[in-house]
Amino acid sequence: MIRNGVKQRWAEGKPVLNGWLSIANSFSAEIMAAQGYDSITIDLQHGIVGYDGAVPMLQAMRASGVTPLVRVPWLDPADIMKALDAGAYGVICPMINTRAEAERLVSYVRYPPAGVRSFGPSRALFSAGPGYAAEADDEIICLAMIETAQAYENLEDILATPGLDGVYIGPADLTLGLQGKRYAPGFDRREPEMIEAIKTILHAAHRAGKRAALHNGTPDYAAEAVGWGFDLVTVSNDVRLLAGAAEASVRTFRELTQEVVPANKIDTGGY
Amino acid sequence: MIRNGVKQRWAEGKPVLNGWLSIANSFSAEIMAAQGYDSITIDLQHGIVGYDGAVPMLQAMRASGVTPLVRVPWLDPADIMKALDAGAYGVICPMINTRAEAERLVSYVRYPPAGVRSFGPSRALFSAGPGYAAEADDEIICLAMIETAQAYENLEDILATPGLDGVYIGPADLTLGLQGKRYAPGFDRREPEMIEAIKTILHAAHRAGKRAALHNGTPDYAAEAVGWGFDLVTVSNDVRLLAGAAEASVRTFRELTQEVVPANKIDTGGY
Amino acid sequence: MIRNGVKQRWAEGKPVLNGWLSIANSFSAEIMAAQGYDSITIDLQHGIVGYDGAVPMLQAMRASGVTPLVRVPWLDPADIMKALDAGAYGVICPMINTRAEAERLVSYVRYPPAGVRSFGPSRALFSAGPGYAAEADDEIICLAMIETAQAYENLEDILATPGLDGVYIGPADLTLGLQGKRYAPGFDRREPEMIEAIKTILHAAHRAGKRAALHNGTPDYAAEAVGWGFDLVTVSNDVRLLAGAAEASVRTFRELTQEVVPANKIDTGGY
Amino acid sequence: MIRNGVKQRWAEGKPVLNGWLSIANSFSAEIMAAQGYDSITIDLQHGIVGYDGAVPMLQAMRASGVTPLVRVPWLDPADIMKALDAGAYGVICPMINTRAEAERLVSYVRYPPAGVRSFGPSRALFSAGPGYAAEADDEIICLAMIETAQAYENLEDILATPGLDGVYIGPADLTLGLQGKRYAPGFDRREPEMIEAIKTILHAAHRAGKRAALHNGTPDYAAEAVGWGFDLVTVSNDVRLLAGAAEASVRTFRELTQEVVPANKIDTGGY
Amino acid sequence: MIRNGVKQRWAEGKPVLNGWLSIANSFSAEIMAAQGYDSITIDLQHGIVGYDGAVPMLQAMRASGVTPLVRVPWLDPADIMKALDAGAYGVICPMINTRAEAERLVSYVRYPPAGVRSFGPSRALFSAGPGYAAEADDEIICLAMIETAQAYENLEDILATPGLDGVYIGPADLTLGLQGKRYAPGFDRREPEMIEAIKTILHAAHRAGKRAALHNGTPDYAAEAVGWGFDLVTVSNDVRLLAGAAEASVRTFRELTQEVVPANKIDTGGY
Amino acid sequence: MIRNGVKQRWAEGKPVLNGWLSIANSFSAEIMAAQGYDSITIDLQHGIVGYDGAVPMLQAMRASGVTPLVRVPWLDPADIMKALDAGAYGVICPMINTRAEAERLVSYVRYPPAGVRSFGPSRALFSAGPGYAAEADDEIICLAMIETAQAYENLEDILATPGLDGVYIGPADLTLGLQGKRYAPGFDRREPEMIEAIKTILHAAHRAGKRAALHNGTPDYAAEAVGWGFDLVTVSNDVRLLAGAAEASVRTFRELTQEVVPANKIDTGGY
Repeated sequence: MIRNGVKQRWAEGKPVLNGWLSIANSFSAEIMAAQGYDSITIDLQHGIVGYDGAVPMLQAMRASGVTPLVRVPWLDPADIMKALDAGAYGVICPMINTRAEAERLVSYVRYPPAGVRSFGPSRALFSAGPGYAAEADDEIICLAMIETAQAYENLEDILATPGLDGVYIGPADLTLGLQGKRYAPGFDRREPEMIEAIKTILHAAHRAGKRAALHNGTPDYAAEAVGWGFDLVTVSNDVRLLAGAAEASVRTFRELTQEVVPANKIDTGGY
Repeated sequence: MIRNGVKQRWAEGKPVLNGWLSIANSFSAEIMAAQGYDSITIDLQHGIVGYDGAVPMLQAMRASGVTPLVRVPWLDPADIMKALDAGAYGVICPMINTRAEAERLVSYVRYPPAGVRSFGPSRALFSAGPGYAAEADDEIICLAMIETAQAYENLEDILATPGLDGVYIGPADLTLGLQGKRYAPGFDRREPEMIEAIKTILHAAHRAGKRAALHNGTPDYAAEAVGWGFDLVTVSNDVRLLAGAAEASVRTFRELTQEVVPANKIDTGGY
Repeated sequence: MIRNGVKQRWAEGKPVLNGWLSIANSFSAEIMAAQGYDSITIDLQHGIVGYDGAVPMLQAMRASGVTPLVRVPWLDPADIMKALDAGAYGVICPMINTRAEAERLVSYVRYPPAGVRSFGPSRALFSAGPGYAAEADDEIICLAMIETAQAYENLEDILATPGLDGVYIGPADLTLGLQGKRYAPGFDRREPEMIEAIKTILHAAHRAGKRAALHNGTPDYAAEAVGWGFDLVTVSNDVRLLAGAAEASVRTFRELTQEVVPANKIDTGGY
Repeated sequence: MIRNGVKQRWAEGKPVLNGWLSIANSFSAEIMAAQGYDSITIDLQHGIVGYDGAVPMLQAMRASGVTPLVRVPWLDPADIMKALDAGAYGVICPMINTRAEAERLVSYVRYPPAGVRSFGPSRALFSAGPGYAAEADDEIICLAMIETAQAYENLEDILATPGLDGVYIGPADLTLGLQGKRYAPGFDRREPEMIEAIKTILHAAHRAGKRAALHNGTPDYAAEAVGWGFDLVTVSNDVRLLAGAAEASVRTFRELTQEVVPANKIDTGGY
Repeated sequence: MIRNGVKQRWAEGKPVLNGWLSIANSFSAEIMAAQGYDSITIDLQHGIVGYDGAVPMLQAMRASGVTPLVRVPWLDPADIMKALDAGAYGVICPMINTRAEAERLVSYVRYPPAGVRSFGPSRALFSAGPGYAAEADDEIICLAMIETAQAYENLEDILATPGLDGVYIGPADLTLGLQGKRYAPGFDRREPEMIEAIKTILHAAHRAGKRAALHNGTPDYAAEAVGWGFDLVTVSNDVRLLAGAAEASVRTFRELTQEVVPANKIDTGGY
Repeated sequence: MIRNGVKQRWAEGKPVLNGWLSIANSFSAEIMAAQGYDSITIDLQHGIVGYDGAVPMLQAMRASGVTPLVRVPWLDPADIMKALDAGAYGVICPMINTRAEAERLVSYVRYPPAGVRSFGPSRALFSAGPGYAAEADDEIICLAMIETAQAYENLEDILATPGLDGVYIGPADLTLGLQGKRYAPGFDRREPEMIEAIKTILHAAHRAGKRAALHNGTPDYAAEAVGWGFDLVTVSNDVRLLAGAAEASVRTFRELTQEVVPANKIDTGGY
């Protein structure tokens, strides 16, 4: 079985740079896969992508050698197992709030006796190379998102879950969860209490022998997070990269041609 | 954030005329969106539409200004949140039978602290205009379908759920639920006990300060329902409108050309 | 090979009622195929349908027994042969203006030595039953659209083309072609000179031993055309049937609820 | 309503030969439907097929008369009901481990009062013929997969579930479930303890008046299973048939042209 | 009919900033349409987009008010008319080399008697508002690409074509055409002879009373071209904006984390 | 630029085994690409595949290293250039009957000054590696199909076309073309006059310094053809491999269970 590039980077003591796909298209996926990310995650939760749209994206990324991950929509065995059968090398699962949920998550990604994953890796047999049945449990990674007040409270319990590879912080939701609507949701938090919460999760993960991952808006914040010790950092996504680059291009043109630049019509609230 | 047209009609004391889409096509959606409905619902439950098919329909309706709603397949956080992230201004959830289910439904459509919706309105940021994070909880509506004997029994409890905007009656299921197979399933019920059940729900909703909605087969019955006090009425859907118009056209032609009209091969049982 | 229903109706001396599909969806095609048409044409010219969208429509209509036809985008061998290979039992080709064009059209639908169609009926082998190679040339029909001033002038020449089954009148284009923008384009012409033109084509076709077909907006006009002698009449299409039925439903509801009915926003100019 | 071919074969005392689809394409489905299977199952669990991909497959198989079944991804009411509304004549549900799960499964496929299926068979009304509302509960079949140690332990309980038509054995998972990773997962088991487990399920099913079905890799094993008494046998699937035929063709060519045949790159582990 | 925004900008004496789409996705189209371009062109020639992929893109851009254009694959009446029927407000046609070709191009976009466009604007009737039949010939624009040595030679002749709105320069092909492989193909030419060729076309167009448009890689070059007098400038496209932004993000991250940045694997040769 | 595997095999003096895809699916393409073919051709002519369906197939085959070719629908610059821009390493063009047609074919696949291909290899820049602009003219191959009486007559002329890499024989069409309907169309001809015709083309090609390719139904015939000297042989396709394997599996099962085997319903006439 082809090795999991994420685990290989970790074994080499290197942080993982993860890309993120929210546009359901195989060409944009192929373009993103050519840019040098270590892994790329198809977002089936908030991305505008369903299962039928995700499969060609996985196929289009295969030749690049980038490690394909999937953020599943929810803690649901069907969605998790379908993502893995289609060739994902790992799942990021949103809204894991308790130890019991973390255990269910792990069980869905491991074959018996370690878990309850059903056998039938229809595409993975082709994309992952020989040895899947024997090696998948070792290669596939499984990350639980910590992004609610409840999860934050249950952090130690969740981190003690055997078979869980690590936790993944969603700063927009975590801010909402810990602070309510006091702050606008978004990534790259600068509020001291949010930085503290993020570092608390990071250090708890490491103490528990787990990996810690963070979703970021910019490479600068992500690099800072790596400096704090994060093992995997996601930077932006296809939507924001495209929108940002187009918006900057239009703005530059309008300025150079001395037209008034209208205020950006899309208020992403820092998200 | 662009205002929710359904809430605006209600604020003006006007009933909402809702269209219904069961064909997974963006052009038929665009056609329907041009006909003057106040809102249009994409039916992900009984419609022959999955998530990947629904997204372009939402996009194709955007220019018309009609308010887009989604009937989700079931009380499932993934499906509900994906519909909202894709730009739906409300969800109609089938088979809500208890107060606990109604509370879960509400929680899935509201951000913390009101609910547990995860933040990431990837398309809504573009389609709903600026202010989504702050205003979505106020604009998005959430309707629980009352369509089983159990729901009918728990009506008052369900209607007392904070954050629930109203209830939506599915007459085909409600008839099945209350009467079993005694009557053929279908809309536009004329049995006195069904009319009474429908009115019971309507009045209980209004007493509880909630909105009441009804699924109808014809504009005549829907107008009658508005006369009873219903706040939102759905009339027919794309499948029945197309089939009905084509069947009538064929029948007229056959009669005019004096050919025997074969009995309609599709027995919709009034549905 | 399964017989061509259009030719069978003609052999029985009966007119053919043809449906028309401009929405690229297999479910709307399946719905239309259940309404009693003799044949249904997928419109690859003006319909919002490309080849990839048309194939599942052909498949979805197969069980109904309706005879599937395709209006090809233009006189192009690739498009014509692809439509036939995918299982169409006939092609309607727009804008045939000369005898040479009519001959090219015929050549694209017949195998050598009658024509130059390339052999490879990949789906037709499955959908049309055994005997395709031997019988397709006899079963497949080919209709040339007469819809320009030039075609009208070359009518006798075109009609003399061996192997051409008939001509198909597009009244919107024919009106534009013969009258310029003097009249709004549309079907169901009532101008005496247009009726005369239509009848001229009809009678010339019959004199030449060819079939004559007419595109119509309503069953009433189509029935009248059958009275004139037309062999095949198309009545309306999925777009207009759906839009018309929805618009009527909305209008009825608004009238019954005493709301002002806004003027229909779509001005189809009689088309 | 068109009769369920599976039940008809059973009523005639004949075994059912079931095909299996894991490629999300309507043409491959139409090809498979022409090969003489009694029923064909679209695999929404391990197949690389989602709901939006499955609908045109159901449509493309309709004309063949083969009975369409769906293996749903999991015990989930939304997925089960959507499959039935789209025209499936039965569901095979994975990972049924307890009597309670079996009861939930049955409830999702039957209308009240027998179950909780919601009424709205949008496509089935067209594909299944008249009488659906009245007859669907009698025609639709529902098979629970027995494929874990827990299910094996609860076998008698599961088989006692009213309304359950039978059990379906997934040998790959059952082997994993009963033996852990001692044996490679796969079909067509030859280990004595697995044959015994398979026969134990078969005989228990028959004692309980239920049908027994088995997933097989080859027609030989399947025929042997029919000899044991199995009522329905699946043989291979589109992926393995295509891969196997192509691999054999390539190997033959390489041998005939005296080139070294590289080892097959895909190690399916007997699966 | 909704006015053509390109013509309106021109009437106001303002240059048009045109965006460009080569990814076949309706969400990326919707994102691009929100960035402030005056018009956006779907590239059916070199874009990885076919007709079936382009339709939802047109729909997704409609709400933004941006003017939708299509670069057609070639001078082909079917492709041109299908693009217009689907709602495009103009076509850019590659490889127009002679006056005769320019005349054919014009004829395909105008209704009789000005041209030979066939009437049937199936989607445009919905998207372009009332009055299409009467006004389309005035609103739709048609640009001929000048990008070969032959075209350059026939420039005056081409520009004299009645009904042609202007010419559009493809610098990559023009460089290939005029210089062969002496220079790498690409936009934003700096070679004096290429700048001279570009300006020659620009000035000839203006002398002939036509508009001149230029394809550019950067807003800086485009602004410079506006300074020269160009009426419409395209800047970059979705592919390059996405790839560029992602590549820059990865590079920044790698630099900040002090990893060696591998050479970009995609050599676009300035294209 | 990644080397063209077909040319590499030829340079090594080895024959090329070419696979063939007529099912528009990226997973079946990925499966086929894993079976050891040297090259695989997507058939846009007779395959049930359009452009929008072909792109994900090209992407899904990329990781395998198999050389991707496309049979284009016809001698049309748009289709040919779009296939190349999407990453095809060669085109097979049907129905080349004259030297002039062969020259046009060559011109469409080569950049100026050798040809008229327009520059914009949007996906090829990603899939073919660096150097595309400079090397594509050397790597891309272009094969003209010889399959009509006219082509057979013009054989020497066609073969003298500079830049043409070779000719490709379609035996079904060639038989129709040379013999009319005297023989059923199909591959693997055994009639002496057809074998002679095939060898005549082969030897003429080699005399002219061109490659010769043959479409075959079986590996046995293909190996024989390699013995004759053919440089590239196609063996069967996905449709026939799948149908054949499924039919054999069903037949075996029916025989083993002693049921009457119904005659195969699909009469492919040897095709």
